[in-house]
Amino acid sequence: MAAKASYSLPRVDSAGSFAAIEKIMSQPEFMRAAITLAEEGMRSGRGGPFGCVVVRRGEIVGRGSNRVTSTNDPTAHAEVVAIRDACAALKTFQLTDCELYTSCEPCPMCLAAIYWARIPQTFYGNTRGDAAAIGFDDDFIYQQVPLPPEKRAIKMELFMRDEAQTAFKEWATKTDKVRY
Amino acid sequence: MAAKASYSLPRVDSAGSFAAIEKIMSQPEFMRAAITLAEEGMRSGRGGPFGCVVVRRGEIVGRGSNRVTSTNDPTAHAEVVAIRDACAALKTFQLTDCELYTSCEPCPMCLAAIYWARIPQTFYGNTRGDAAAIGFDDDFIYQQVPLPPEKRAIKMELFMRDEAQTAFKEWATKTDKVRY
Repeated sequence: MAAKASYSLPRVDSAGSFAAIEKIMSQPEFMRAAITLAEEGMRSGRGGPFGCVVVRRGEIVGRGSNRVTSTNDPTAHAEVVAIRDACAALKTFQLTDCELYTSCEPCPMCLAAIYWARIPQTFYGNTRGDAAAIGFDDDFIYQQVPLPPEKRAIKMELFMRDEAQTAFKEWATKTDKVRY
Repeated sequence: MAAKASYSLPRVDSAGSFAAIEKIMSQPEFMRAAITLAEEGMRSGRGGPFGCVVVRRGEIVGRGSNRVTSTNDPTAHAEVVAIRDACAALKTFQLTDCELYTSCEPCPMCLAAIYWARIPQTFYGNTRGDAAAIGFDDDFIYQQVPLPPEKRAIKMELFMRDEAQTAFKEWATKTDKVRY
């Protein structure tokens, strides 16, 4: 499958056209690296069959495979692990000049993590439907997120909002805050 | 604000009615602990004004405050930190007998993390609208998640699905897999 023409936009740099061609050619390699992480992670018993790489200017800067069950961390999805790995390597909390390759469409947790990390482009292999077909809840959670809180399978209740407001008011006027 | 009657259900145990009353009385204390974590985290420069506790049978088993900017981790929201903390303490990847108290409505990343952790009940202080009013993207991301991938502000592209399918097929027939 060909990449979108728009894909090369964030990757154009002073290295010129040869570098651009080389980078476009390596897209399948990046996805294969994500798929290999998925396969290795599953086979070694680290977790589910999911892998991910974060790429910056033609180089892999972060890697992750699912390790939920082996590390007792329900947030350790491949994308979250790869984003944390890339941010640690690059010493930043924003990956605005990166792309993410993941072996499966990100679940809502990972999708929102991509937004918070400011990654402008994502390539994914399997779909949320493919994940549902082998027993994962990604599609179910996608259905739950847009619901009003009181309609969800999880019980959610607004509680003590007046007291919680204090911290928000203080943040609004804080002069030395670091935004994200 | 009174708790829902259903709240006490997952917390009923052999300790009987006195314990049940004691637990219901401590709900404001749990929320205040989350709010205090939000305030301390903000004032110490760890990150945004968000705090969270995970509670099991009347005891706090996990704590978190936002530390995105101080640890270069865009996934280090209060809820994610608290869930990871609780899972590490309890040596499990599923918190089915816990509740979560957070000083603000969970963003989609944290909401999905609550689903993956199987936490059946969440109490929240501020709303996503309150967070938007002081400059946070929670509400924007809530609007983005339900969109078809090609309509989002982030570019998303299905890529090499055939190769990605291999790991999923292997998972489907794997006999020693640990589900989550």
